[in-house]
Amino acid sequence: MSQAHGEALLTDLYQLTMLQSYLEHGYTDTAVFEFFVRKLPRTRAFLLAAGLEQALDYLEGLRFTGPELEWVRRSGRFSRDFADWLEGFRFSGEVHALPEGTVFFADEPVLRVTAPLPEAQLVESRLINLLHFQTLIASKAARCVLAARGSLLVDFGMRRAHGAEAALLAARACYLAGFAGTATVLAGMRWGIPIYGTMAHSYIEAHDDEAEAFEHFARSHPDNAVLLIDTYDTEAGARKVVRLAERLAAAGIRIRGVRIDSGDLAAHARRVRAILDQGGLREAIIFASGNLDEHELARLLETGAPIDGFGVGTRLDTSADVPYLDCAYKLMEYAGRARRKRSEGKATWPGRKQVWRERDAEGRIVRDVLTVEGDPQPGEGLLVPVMRDGRRLAPPEPLEAVRARARRELERLPPALRRLEPAETHFACEIAPALRALAAEVDRATGGG
Amino acid sequence: MSQAHGEALLTDLYQLTMLQSYLEHGYTDTAVFEFFVRKLPRTRAFLLAAGLEQALDYLEGLRFTGPELEWVRRSGRFSRDFADWLEGFRFSGEVHALPEGTVFFADEPVLRVTAPLPEAQLVESRLINLLHFQTLIASKAARCVLAARGSLLVDFGMRRAHGAEAALLAARACYLAGFAGTATVLAGMRWGIPIYGTMAHSYIEAHDDEAEAFEHFARSHPDNAVLLIDTYDTEAGARKVVRLAERLAAAGIRIRGVRIDSGDLAAHARRVRAILDQGGLREAIIFASGNLDEHELARLLETGAPIDGFGVGTRLDTSADVPYLDCAYKLMEYAGRARRKRSEGKATWPGRKQVWRERDAEGRIVRDVLTVEGDPQPGEGLLVPVMRDGRRLAPPEPLEAVRARARRELERLPPALRRLEPAETHFACEIAPALRALAAEVDRATGGG
Repeated sequence: MSQAHGEALLTDLYQLTMLQSYLEHGYTDTAVFEFFVRKLPRTRAFLLAAGLEQALDYLEGLRFTGPELEWVRRSGRFSRDFADWLEGFRFSGEVHALPEGTVFFADEPVLRVTAPLPEAQLVESRLINLLHFQTLIASKAARCVLAARGSLLVDFGMRRAHGAEAALLAARACYLAGFAGTATVLAGMRWGIPIYGTMAHSYIEAHDDEAEAFEHFARSHPDNAVLLIDTYDTEAGARKVVRLAERLAAAGIRIRGVRIDSGDLAAHARRVRAILDQGGLREAIIFASGNLDEHELARLLETGAPIDGFGVGTRLDTSADVPYLDCAYKLMEYAGRARRKRSEGKATWPGRKQVWRERDAEGRIVRDVLTVEGDPQPGEGLLVPVMRDGRRLAPPEPLEAVRARARRELERLPPALRRLEPAETHFACEIAPALRALAAEVDRATGGG
Repeated sequence: MSQAHGEALLTDLYQLTMLQSYLEHGYTDTAVFEFFVRKLPRTRAFLLAAGLEQALDYLEGLRFTGPELEWVRRSGRFSRDFADWLEGFRFSGEVHALPEGTVFFADEPVLRVTAPLPEAQLVESRLINLLHFQTLIASKAARCVLAARGSLLVDFGMRRAHGAEAALLAARACYLAGFAGTATVLAGMRWGIPIYGTMAHSYIEAHDDEAEAFEHFARSHPDNAVLLIDTYDTEAGARKVVRLAERLAAAGIRIRGVRIDSGDLAAHARRVRAILDQGGLREAIIFASGNLDEHELARLLETGAPIDGFGVGTRLDTSADVPYLDCAYKLMEYAGRARRKRSEGKATWPGRKQVWRERDAEGRIVRDVLTVEGDPQPGEGLLVPVMRDGRRLAPPEPLEAVRARARRELERLPPALRRLEPAETHFACEIAPALRALAAEVDRATGGG
């Protein structure tokens, strides 16, 4: 996403009021914040990190421009010094993160910001907003990918996604998690994501005759038409497609396939497959859509329904069963001292942390250990440096590379984590002794137990 | 919202492929599409219309600009004629709609577009995207308003809203539904919505001493500080606030209140209220936040918890219990003939429609009747003309006027519709004989039953 006009003020008011106070009282030492998920939803065995590129774009591009500064100055809420400070604002910090497409679990830092306190604080609201949403959708999409057993999956969710940015970023998150593409044109233009489309019921209804509608569409798209056959009677629609294909073959026009969007999709698909096959359209694909999610995909494919591809929409782009994650961006260290909050039910592990992941010979996750930085454990440290002095350390990672990583991650997922049904207990990282010791030390220092 | 770069391609691919075919085959007669909700969620007794202003902005501003046209021309998917047609595109149609803030029910058109078929078709995806989301959030927010019994409600949801636009439009939808304001600064700048903020745990934790943190914040915001007291021990925090207030009173600094964000909010609020009152801070408000929704608000207020205001966040901005509505934008008429789809479980009422609402002497809804245009019924016709020849008929309605309408609508809601708990059956509009007759006629014409 390019920097949206006004994005600098896309934040919570308290960030600005705290900042003014930090600056007035000299709280400008180095702070470390980490973004993590406190607790996995019962129906998510793992999460897939996503949104880092947009987060880094935001940090690199963050500026307070004319209209925003004018608003700050005129609001009567802030000092002149503070407005001047905002005018010169650049993010100058360091970022460590899990690469996009990495599988992760509760308590594991996904992103760590190290920067002067006011800078690290200011970016909280939008960083959460960006990392939370794409991670939410990529994690849901990954479940669809596991359920789909290699069938073609297309994101159809734009219309009921929560606004423009959600629609776009959902298309990106689905693609990186393994979807074949999206119906959202702008996502194709922006990121080169393959785009797919069929036709709507309105196209059929605008014609007085369904067969004529099919013919018009096929003539306009001679090698790519996927015809929607459920407007009036699905099997009758399939028979019209067969007759049309025979007639148009001479003109070199090939019907690519049909779409079914209502009713018992498995039963219709079976009857439609038979009609198409008997009509010589063995190559024509059957595409299905309508209220799909990972459970419905699994159910359809278990019954052996002859469906080649699926449009998955609303339930995916809203992550309908789990529309948010319990995530946070918390202060872990300030001025060289580790910090934690101890609010009831919301205590956090303090300090700068690293996650070490041990894998077996097949590359499957065996053990994650969460510990303080500089306390190496067996396996691989997952957080890597991605930004220094407010600049990316490398160009944005190609989306195809992220997608390849996610594919490897899903292929190597232990069987227990591949199941769609919620397990009794979640996979959890182990807490290293060094981290436990630090937490106890912090509590003693702040008078806690 | 100003026209976002690339918004013209924020659509589903099939809109473009259908358009090219419409144009090639001369399907450019007048079409009528209506946006409506097929079925209310079990936990919504009514919905509140919202998003019309953004929908009209979109229709007025929709243009295909340089980079989008270049993408269309280079994609290899479309004809040169079609790209030229897009280059000259302006929306030239007519729009009728429910005013924002109007209560409505299943099957009732919220917005009707009358325009040449390609124009009316092209705008489908983004119109749904805009109307669906704000209606979803305004309807959830209205339930919070009903539950809150006049307490101050503030939208705290930006960070977990689904992206930037969702965060902004959620702030708008909450405000029009009766919230006092939002924490999202940009919503304040853009629409003049009152903004609210307190402080975060990180502010406290950055200090070595909680009392010192309180003092720094209060000195920076001498008449407006709401201090977060639950970082370590809520009641101990309240006692520190009392001691600080005594000390700062001489300097003319007044503590506005405290916020509690964790634990048993009602129990903490009672103990904190007693501490504040005994300490002479009877005027100080108690603000609560943390996993709130309409049910939690109702529960807290039923127990008489002394809480003056609430920050409602994630569950509101994601409409967590109902993260989407079963809504559609369907072709109702083309070239002067009514149309409907009959797909299983998704049949629609055909033709251009109007909703007539009858009220009792107190203004409470007694009966809604859905019928064809030009078939007046008792009461008031709800759909009003808002756009002609692609231009608004009046300047955008002030948000305060929308808010006043929503307040009247909620005040006059029949008791059965005010309850938070799902009812056995939903309130439903009656279908007028003229509309039933039209549906039967359409079915005969398209060979249905």
